Amino acid sequence: MIILTGCGNLQNSNLANNNSAQVQNTFQITGTTNDNTYNVLLQDGRYKSSPSRGATATMLNSVDVTGMESGLVQISKQAFSTEKYIFQEGQQISQSDAYNWLGRYDEKSNPDGLNPAANSETDADKRTPVYLEQLLEQNYMTGSGNNYNVQGISLTLAMNSVDYYQKEKDGATYSTKISREDQEKHGKEMAQKVVERLRQKEGLKNIPIVIALYSRPSVDSLTGGAYFATTTVNGDSGSIGNWQTIDNQTQVFPIVSGSEKAINSSDLEGFQNFKSIVQGYFPNLSGVIAKSNYENGKLNSMTITVNTQFYGYQQINSFTKLISNSAEKYLPKNVPIEIKVQAVGEVQSVVIRDSSNYNFYSHVFSNEN
Amino acid sequence: MIILTGCGNLQNSNLANNNSAQVQNTFQITGTTNDNTYNVLLQDGRYKSSPSRGATATMLNSVDVTGMESGLVQISKQAFSTEKYIFQEGQQISQSDAYNWLGRYDEKSNPDGLNPAANSETDADKRTPVYLEQLLEQNYMTGSGNNYNVQGISLTLAMNSVDYYQKEKDGATYSTKISREDQEKHGKEMAQKVVERLRQKEGLKNIPIVIALYSRPSVDSLTGGAYFATTTVNGDSGSIGNWQTIDNQTQVFPIVSGSEKAINSSDLEGFQNFKSIVQGYFPNLSGVIAKSNYENGKLNSMTITVNTQFYGYQQINSFTKLISNSAEKYLPKNVPIEIKVQAVGEVQSVVIRDSSNYNFYSHVFSNEN
Repeated sequence: MIILTGCGNLQNSNLANNNSAQVQNTFQITGTTNDNTYNVLLQDGRYKSSPSRGATATMLNSVDVTGMESGLVQISKQAFSTEKYIFQEGQQISQSDAYNWLGRYDEKSNPDGLNPAANSETDADKRTPVYLEQLLEQNYMTGSGNNYNVQGISLTLAMNSVDYYQKEKDGATYSTKISREDQEKHGKEMAQKVVERLRQKEGLKNIPIVIALYSRPSVDSLTGGAYFATTTVNGDSGSIGNWQTIDNQTQVFPIVSGSEKAINSSDLEGFQNFKSIVQGYFPNLSGVIAKSNYENGKLNSMTITVNTQFYGYQQINSFTKLISNSAEKYLPKNVPIEIKVQAVGEVQSVVIRDSSNYNFYSHVFSNEN
Repeated sequence: MIILTGCGNLQNSNLANNNSAQVQNTFQITGTTNDNTYNVLLQDGRYKSSPSRGATATMLNSVDVTGMESGLVQISKQAFSTEKYIFQEGQQISQSDAYNWLGRYDEKSNPDGLNPAANSETDADKRTPVYLEQLLEQNYMTGSGNNYNVQGISLTLAMNSVDYYQKEKDGATYSTKISREDQEKHGKEMAQKVVERLRQKEGLKNIPIVIALYSRPSVDSLTGGAYFATTTVNGDSGSIGNWQTIDNQTQVFPIVSGSEKAINSSDLEGFQNFKSIVQGYFPNLSGVIAKSNYENGKLNSMTITVNTQFYGYQQINSFTKLISNSAEKYLPKNVPIEIKVQAVGEVQSVVIRDSSNYNFYSHVFSNEN
């Protein structure tokens, strides 16, 4: 059964579908960059969303695509240089394609379904789970003026690490765990089919295709999902060769589980020193939490949220200064770090090191009403 | 009648009151600065709040002190240079002093009350309103090691522009409007009494006192309150001489009232150009609102909030780039500007020019869950 979620339409901010009568669109690209980020192609001044955005196989599995999107952009940089290519959200897989592909296979009603047909079981370990939950397509364009063409395509197959299901409509929610091995096995098989289908499409017959496999988190995960494999199919090929393993892990500090070990103990130690200085400043501070992202065991980035209970202007100012100094002193060097200070759900100030080369930038928001 | 609000205790983040048995505190100051902001004095690593913080004359009048605080810091810079003085929240006016002074005068029960005794009227125009709602004290210190002394004191008298009241307990809320002239007249009279009282206190007999009068906003105000007068009493004087007028106004863009005129029409025009570019990008954008602050008719700062309904990583990235480029192009030059992009109540990105001399800095938050 294919369930249509409304998200796709809500998040689709372009009016391209309504513009089909127009004979010509005008294109713009977002300003030039020199910071290893893509220019983005705009149409009639507007950002163009994927028609397949928001399409999911089920309605029960949580949808958080921000990390998935930024991850695919990073992976794509290996194949499509930011200097040469311009980004556009994927326009090649239609919404109906997406829903058909994400659906369960059925010889008659859905021969394109990539997920296996359901068996008659309802037990978590005996039923056939939905492996593939979501597709994310990105296009990498070249061109100028009013003439831009897709010269590269990137596609994420987002695999469920947990498949949530109901035994009866509106009944209790159950879950089937899917091992990383099973996600990988099914993801790679599906990827080959997807490549063959893309090669049938006009304009995609001989351009490079990047495929990436993403493991979606469980709904109660603190760390989010992670990419675990990628491959690039050259323009002259119709089949996938070697896969490259991606070792990406996110760890939450402080570590609360007794059995969990720090991926890098000196990162954890630095965080703990930072935390104790920051918390010493305010006894009623409610929390300092970090998410550390590791690539091949090496720290990639850190985001920290500091939750407080106060408001005062000079209090926030001096607190932000303390955070900035303590971050410089205790937190890991040479990686991007983002620190948000929140009180009562509102961001009060930020302390940010965007690149490994720069000092921390800090800003206190003017929250005067 | 004096009503004790709980805010004071909740916001008081220091434990100094509980530490009175300690014979010695250690002092620190927040890192050195060269950006015309004050260092802040910490005690035992902690920020020390005012005992009078949160004290208000009534419970019905809204309490938003952030702008009041930052304003008094700015005013204080005229008298107390950021290079010489270190900031501490006011410690000279106790909480009970504050409540007594803010109360209505009563010969027997509250001879220190600065607000006039109530008459027997309940009509909005016949009753005696509460003029003075709040006090804000700041101390400017010098010293080193474990020896810091107050060398300057700044005090805001926060006057009600509207005094909200009830005719019976838990009854309907009524309001008395107080003209700027009346706020000024009563504020200046009260200020003289306050100066005399401060001069009685140990350590305050011969240090400069800065007094500032602030007009508190109505509860439905979009623009917040404003300072309107200030004076400095020299260390050798016990009475107020000349007052200096502060012409501070905040205007909200777009202007919705047909009768309201732009304080500066080219600022408004720049904002409107910026807004139409930004809104052209997303048809479903729900709002672009600016608050422009003017000092003596000259733009001082602008804060802009952009509310959107989307989430995508590249969407936010390219939108933020567009905002940054459009801000550079259309918004007023040479003033600090802060732009916050929000979706569903969460800050997605920021575009900031902190000082008149620098380019815009932009950052997209990593909102991966």
